[in-house]
Amino acid sequence: MSTDVEFMRRAIELARQGVEGNVGGPFGCVIAKDGRLIAEGVNAVSSTNDPTAHAEIVAIRRACEKLDSFRLEGCLIYATCEPCPMCLGAIYWSRAERLYIACDRNDAAAAGFDDAHIYEELCSTELGNRKIPVSILLRADGLAVFDDWERKPDKIEY
Amino acid sequence: MSTDVEFMRRAIELARQGVEGNVGGPFGCVIAKDGRLIAEGVNAVSSTNDPTAHAEIVAIRRACEKLDSFRLEGCLIYATCEPCPMCLGAIYWSRAERLYIACDRNDAAAAGFDDAHIYEELCSTELGNRKIPVSILLRADGLAVFDDWERKPDKIEY
Repeated sequence: MSTDVEFMRRAIELARQGVEGNVGGPFGCVIAKDGRLIAEGVNAVSSTNDPTAHAEIVAIRRACEKLDSFRLEGCLIYATCEPCPMCLGAIYWSRAERLYIACDRNDAAAAGFDDAHIYEELCSTELGNRKIPVSILLRADGLAVFDDWERKPDKIEY
Repeated sequence: MSTDVEFMRRAIELARQGVEGNVGGPFGCVIAKDGRLIAEGVNAVSSTNDPTAHAEIVAIRRACEKLDSFRLEGCLIYATCEPCPMCLGAIYWSRAERLYIACDRNDAAAAGFDDAHIYEELCSTELGNRKIPVSILLRADGLAVFDDWERKPDKIEY
């Protein structure tokens, strides 16, 4: 059994090792359940050429693999920084129970990680006015696939 | 060279195949550059036990692998539905040029995919009041890793 502070210390240690080892940005993440460490992750964007390889995404994927489930119910997530919208979205999809952070999005921005502009685009900017513009194509055909899904008797909801 | 409509038709075809083949939810994604298809993705959450395996994340990871880069500059993304916050965040981190969607978040909600509550949590709810509560731990230790990063002479920014 480890404590919340011990898990966060480990996440911070991972972040530091990631920086020193040129794995990626200064972010680490630990996922625990019932007082035991389930999975660890470190930002590996630049070393793996994967823009989704943030510490939280890496740790969530590993935890799900370990638990053989796409849900992390009862799991606690320790992230060294407030998650960006991508990672926070992943945390919601995972159904984790609670999130601990060391730094927040303002601290990240001060270190050059501008999650804030992504939050602004997602939360405050209409689809048509975004920096990555959004256009709608073939909506009726897209809706037909939702109809297929709704009629599917053996679908697995997540 | 294919057209925008052709790429979206392919994304919709992938979504339909994913539903029929029990790969996951009814979502597909295609990424193109210079009129050529670079990567495809289909939602695989339930078949791979990976809550991050949304069509867009799968396609972005494959496109980056193919282009050997963590940036998708000049790439166009065709998603069968307005991306959830996780996927939209990933699209911003990828630096893609433009996004095409067939359906929007309201269509998704009508089909049982409640991205809207994640948008609400991210955009309108204070950290302490969220359904997945957020607590701060060891902020000073976390900040020290950002200092390490800022002082690192050979860091790769992303």
